Amino acid sequence: MQSFSNLVTTFENRFSTLSSFPLQPATLYDPCNYFLGIGGKRVRPVVCLMACELFADITDDAWRAAAAVELFHNFTLVHDDIMDKAPLRRGQQTLHQKYGLTSGILCGDVMCIYAYDQLAHIKKALPQVMQVFNKTAIEVCEGQQIDMDFELRNDVSIEEYLQMITLKTSVLLAASLKMGAITGGALGDNANKLYEFGKNMGIAFQLQDDYLDAFGDTDKLGKQNGGDILANKKTYLLLKAKEHATPEQKQLMENLLMQDDAHKVAKMLALFVTTGADEACRTATKYYSDLAFSCLEEVAVPSARKAPLRELATYLLHRDK
Amino acid sequence: MQSFSNLVTTFENRFSTLSSFPLQPATLYDPCNYFLGIGGKRVRPVVCLMACELFADITDDAWRAAAAVELFHNFTLVHDDIMDKAPLRRGQQTLHQKYGLTSGILCGDVMCIYAYDQLAHIKKALPQVMQVFNKTAIEVCEGQQIDMDFELRNDVSIEEYLQMITLKTSVLLAASLKMGAITGGALGDNANKLYEFGKNMGIAFQLQDDYLDAFGDTDKLGKQNGGDILANKKTYLLLKAKEHATPEQKQLMENLLMQDDAHKVAKMLALFVTTGADEACRTATKYYSDLAFSCLEEVAVPSARKAPLRELATYLLHRDK
Repeated sequence: MQSFSNLVTTFENRFSTLSSFPLQPATLYDPCNYFLGIGGKRVRPVVCLMACELFADITDDAWRAAAAVELFHNFTLVHDDIMDKAPLRRGQQTLHQKYGLTSGILCGDVMCIYAYDQLAHIKKALPQVMQVFNKTAIEVCEGQQIDMDFELRNDVSIEEYLQMITLKTSVLLAASLKMGAITGGALGDNANKLYEFGKNMGIAFQLQDDYLDAFGDTDKLGKQNGGDILANKKTYLLLKAKEHATPEQKQLMENLLMQDDAHKVAKMLALFVTTGADEACRTATKYYSDLAFSCLEEVAVPSARKAPLRELATYLLHRDK
Repeated sequence: MQSFSNLVTTFENRFSTLSSFPLQPATLYDPCNYFLGIGGKRVRPVVCLMACELFADITDDAWRAAAAVELFHNFTLVHDDIMDKAPLRRGQQTLHQKYGLTSGILCGDVMCIYAYDQLAHIKKALPQVMQVFNKTAIEVCEGQQIDMDFELRNDVSIEEYLQMITLKTSVLLAASLKMGAITGGALGDNANKLYEFGKNMGIAFQLQDDYLDAFGDTDKLGKQNGGDILANKKTYLLLKAKEHATPEQKQLMENLLMQDDAHKVAKMLALFVTTGADEACRTATKYYSDLAFSCLEEVAVPSARKAPLRELATYLLHRDK
């Protein structure tokens, strides 16, 4: 069993071989290589490999599934960046910002197809892996659409928000684990428990992300607090604050959302605290985090084998235990 | 064996069942249904079914492959329309024109994934079908990128043009036939001959399309002649005319390409004729058309079984024989 940092390095090496694009047309593949080079934590492919390793040595099929997941994830990032009009990702220019809209669309498309091309090499259980992958890929698109729709709505409920983040971000983490488990030969119940572990971990991670964007340590985050507040993003904090607000607080929030205010972030943060939204967000994060860990414990393999996944989740969820 | 019109009707019925989208989120799936409803000749899925029928009764796998091809084709149309800034397709609003850029990107994406979801249902020879499909899908993206690159270049050769139309349009027709043949249990050589038949038919069809846009009967086409000329599109006619032009003719062409001229279409058509580009285009069309028919004849099944494919190609290529 390998540690997270170990697997990230091994994955990076394998990935650059497995998913090397042709040289031509350079106008198509140079931007793809640029974007994949921006990097990221590679959490999805690594949990895929870890899930496989619960049941068997990492198989060629698991490497393919991991590469597919990473390519698919990057495809969604490229297209999401267009839809979100995002100029930067991890401090680097987004693909469409650097190479234009046409490249943004087409490079995303071809990365999606290369993801499936990785899957096509899977020797065992290809139909099962495809089924998980396709269901998830559709859900990710649905989640992105629902997120876009939220921008035009003022009546988004907490329940709808949780559903959206589940689709948009958690199911891909969940599917990565399940696909890894399947390629490792896991039986249905274990694969499904790992799926639930990933899904709940993904939800907890997103809620924590909402929290840290508002209340995080700016030194550690490397960015200013309150980006979501400035963008009027409907986060868990905002929705919960709205739900708990008195009529006066609600009015204040609505004013803040409509106008430019030099102290918008500070005023909104104060509202998140006085309405108890901050506390509710931490509670919800812990709820999904606990749920994730208990799903992991239910996977029927010796506890020691689960150490890498447990450590990774602990690290990602900033937990002490 | 069934005729083209017969198979189109049957396909439409099956397709609406096989590829029915969920109801929610309606903001994602309504635009998809709108776009698929615009229709089209359904040539690709129908030749897929016809290719299967050369070797066996149409199988469930063939229906899935046909549906996948049609979904994939529509995905590329939706994204191409964005890149081409096209407001209309078959007289109807393009998807992004009607629903916006975000929908254009995301609906295209989800149609691509649904294409793979159709493939995932294939029971026999899934890896072989996936391999053909993925290779082709990548080529289609590459062809679109090369087409986009052409807009910025002034030194496109005829050879490069033929390569581009092969990738952008012919290989998907070719792959539809090959996938149909594989699902019908064809052996390698027959499947490859059908691929070549489709590839050459696709090239001939595109060359004919270039010709008809310039010289076609406007009544039959339902649109004005010279759309490509007005858009300065680098077609076979334009590239060939450039190649054959005298220095004076070349200068005249370049002026026409740079300026607005009330008689631009008429003057360019005259140049196509005097340089012999029109004749060269007809000759090239016949060359690829003949090649297509001879590939079809080499497919080792009784000649009578090939009648539907032969008739369809004759119809599409406006041939008398």
